[in-house]
Amino acid sequence: MKEIYLDNAATTKVDEKVAKAMQSYLTENYGNPSSLHFKGQEAKRGLDEAREIIAREIGAKFKDIIFTGSGTEANNFVIKGLFLKEQTIKSGKNHIITTKIEHDCILNACKWVVTQGGKVTYLDVDATGFVNPQDVADAITEKTILVSVIHGNNEIGTIQHLQEIGKICQEKNVLFHTDACQSFTKVPIKIKKMNLDLMTINAHKIHGPKGVGALYIREGIKITPLLHGGGQEFKLRSSTENVPGIVGFGKAVQVASNRDVKRIKKLRDYFIEKITNEISNVSLNGPSREDRLCNNINLCFNNIEGEAIGSFLNSAGIFTSTGSACSSKNLDPSHVLLAIGKTPLEANSSIRISISKYTTKEEIDFAIEQLKKTVEKLRRISPLVGDI
Amino acid sequence: MKEIYLDNAATTKVDEKVAKAMQSYLTENYGNPSSLHFKGQEAKRGLDEAREIIAREIGAKFKDIIFTGSGTEANNFVIKGLFLKEQTIKSGKNHIITTKIEHDCILNACKWVVTQGGKVTYLDVDATGFVNPQDVADAITEKTILVSVIHGNNEIGTIQHLQEIGKICQEKNVLFHTDACQSFTKVPIKIKKMNLDLMTINAHKIHGPKGVGALYIREGIKITPLLHGGGQEFKLRSSTENVPGIVGFGKAVQVASNRDVKRIKKLRDYFIEKITNEISNVSLNGPSREDRLCNNINLCFNNIEGEAIGSFLNSAGIFTSTGSACSSKNLDPSHVLLAIGKTPLEANSSIRISISKYTTKEEIDFAIEQLKKTVEKLRRISPLVGDI
Repeated sequence: MKEIYLDNAATTKVDEKVAKAMQSYLTENYGNPSSLHFKGQEAKRGLDEAREIIAREIGAKFKDIIFTGSGTEANNFVIKGLFLKEQTIKSGKNHIITTKIEHDCILNACKWVVTQGGKVTYLDVDATGFVNPQDVADAITEKTILVSVIHGNNEIGTIQHLQEIGKICQEKNVLFHTDACQSFTKVPIKIKKMNLDLMTINAHKIHGPKGVGALYIREGIKITPLLHGGGQEFKLRSSTENVPGIVGFGKAVQVASNRDVKRIKKLRDYFIEKITNEISNVSLNGPSREDRLCNNINLCFNNIEGEAIGSFLNSAGIFTSTGSACSSKNLDPSHVLLAIGKTPLEANSSIRISISKYTTKEEIDFAIEQLKKTVEKLRRISPLVGDI
Repeated sequence: MKEIYLDNAATTKVDEKVAKAMQSYLTENYGNPSSLHFKGQEAKRGLDEAREIIAREIGAKFKDIIFTGSGTEANNFVIKGLFLKEQTIKSGKNHIITTKIEHDCILNACKWVVTQGGKVTYLDVDATGFVNPQDVADAITEKTILVSVIHGNNEIGTIQHLQEIGKICQEKNVLFHTDACQSFTKVPIKIKKMNLDLMTINAHKIHGPKGVGALYIREGIKITPLLHGGGQEFKLRSSTENVPGIVGFGKAVQVASNRDVKRIKKLRDYFIEKITNEISNVSLNGPSREDRLCNNINLCFNNIEGEAIGSFLNSAGIFTSTGSACSSKNLDPSHVLLAIGKTPLEANSSIRISISKYTTKEEIDFAIEQLKKTVEKLRRISPLVGDI
């Protein structure tokens, strides 16, 4: 059976060029970058090159890029590392501002902060997932340590207007962080223009390997490490560096292209147009074209279970999801869809389709055909269908 | 120039079979194990198989193996996760017992615990690196949360007698953890026999990839996650799992063999015998044969700088170290060598040679020749040499 992978927001196929770049760091240049000998320094060069590529991509300094084991680790590092740092504790600051549409790793790290005596404000978003910058301004108090707002939303694709929020944080002298795992290489990110102090990115969403993330930390920001030890990553993240993975991350950034983004965007719009024309009673969750991640489509098929649609498509070799992969086993309605005002029923009637540079028009046409058939079939048997 | 890699305690060459096993999980079976569709479940099978292999190897249950991003992460997870758990805080327990010869990640995680109001006892060791089990018994108080003792020491190769220590911990009802990164697959580890409650292992010391570790946590033990998020790894370690790395870890365990261990041991003893016969005024740091990691050699060349020896050997294409790779840039004398009673001068006159299954007798003969020449040369020019 042909496989059509439309779940690229969950993870992506590693680019062959990336896999090739990693290979020699497994079996040949396998030294430990902390070793002073030639074999160690050879590995260190690979590490440094990747760091340089990523720093350049976002307009940061070489030393401001800290490699981690995942985006989740980088997000936990920001939330806990700023909350636990000595200066925070001494100053009595304990307040974090974030949004209701963050990834679970921000939300659950924040929950932990609350168990340790912290306070967290979860900002509302509008019907397409945007934070009102004025709400950020209003939420900041003297005790605020950090504002953390996701850049490209993983479920509904909203590309947040970070520049305005960053301006407010700068004026109020509060650190500003974004989780850019979904937007990195898809939307231009210039940390200075957006006034970003910290930013999380990772590799496996951009055709790089799983097990590698990075945190941009603006020079001068003090943060308590999550991992103490040998002092790697400028003493901020101990562990022998995952050199092959990091080299792969650098290569993934290098091969990402604006041409691919444009092509993906066209395919996305073609998909959305065809589906909304050919299937009745379907609506798009999230914002319209320009404000939406190039690869994200999130559709609500009124009154039929998203899980059931996904399961039928899976049988036809088409792989989609009903939301974040991390919470796929959780049957609660998506917190992101609830935050944009959908009812639990609407949220549970939605599926996410996320395409990539490997997606072809033929695949999309086939997926649309199957989706039409599936929806027709399910609507015939759905107990919820009476009111359409 | 021929390269002779004798720094396998720092990191190892990835076995070709391991690299091959990883490959298909990069570019083919690249799904997210949390995804419910076929592509996700295919990845989950790879993950499950690796977990099964590792569980079986140490006599643990499938669900007791939690994959992490490194040994350092697993060690930080144990120390901080037990210290920060709700029950610990409520009970007023705050005391950790460890040794003076742990890896930096245990020592520095413990230092952090002290900044948070914890108390840490660092046990002395004898002249070859052994903890006196009676000292463990004496150090345990009503407030003790954990005893953490390294299994195979990364610098001097001491294989700690864990069974006796584990018995004491069990009798006194205190959790017992070991960092077994250096001993895993080299020394038989049976967690039940050793009364181990938690154990850290990793992949890159055993011809697996960098960026993967694991923590064994005995069923029923409560611990606060270091990484909160999507709830992967039985809700104990969130992050999209590094499937290719984990599959590689499993394969590395599978290909590790007792035959290799025996061969490495013979080479080690040949090396030690030849060096101590052919070079004057040299002594072995650490314990004798049976109590020593099969791949570890640590030699003190009185009155010449270990750094200088390493640098000369490096020029000849022979890669060794003066201690832990993590602290290779640090010129302080090794804390492990000081703990076994060496003077700072003796500690700084030592080098570590760590071999592997890829090391040949020819390589060792060549290394010995070069080492003899280097030592002769350095002794001729050393300002410290007057007193031999």
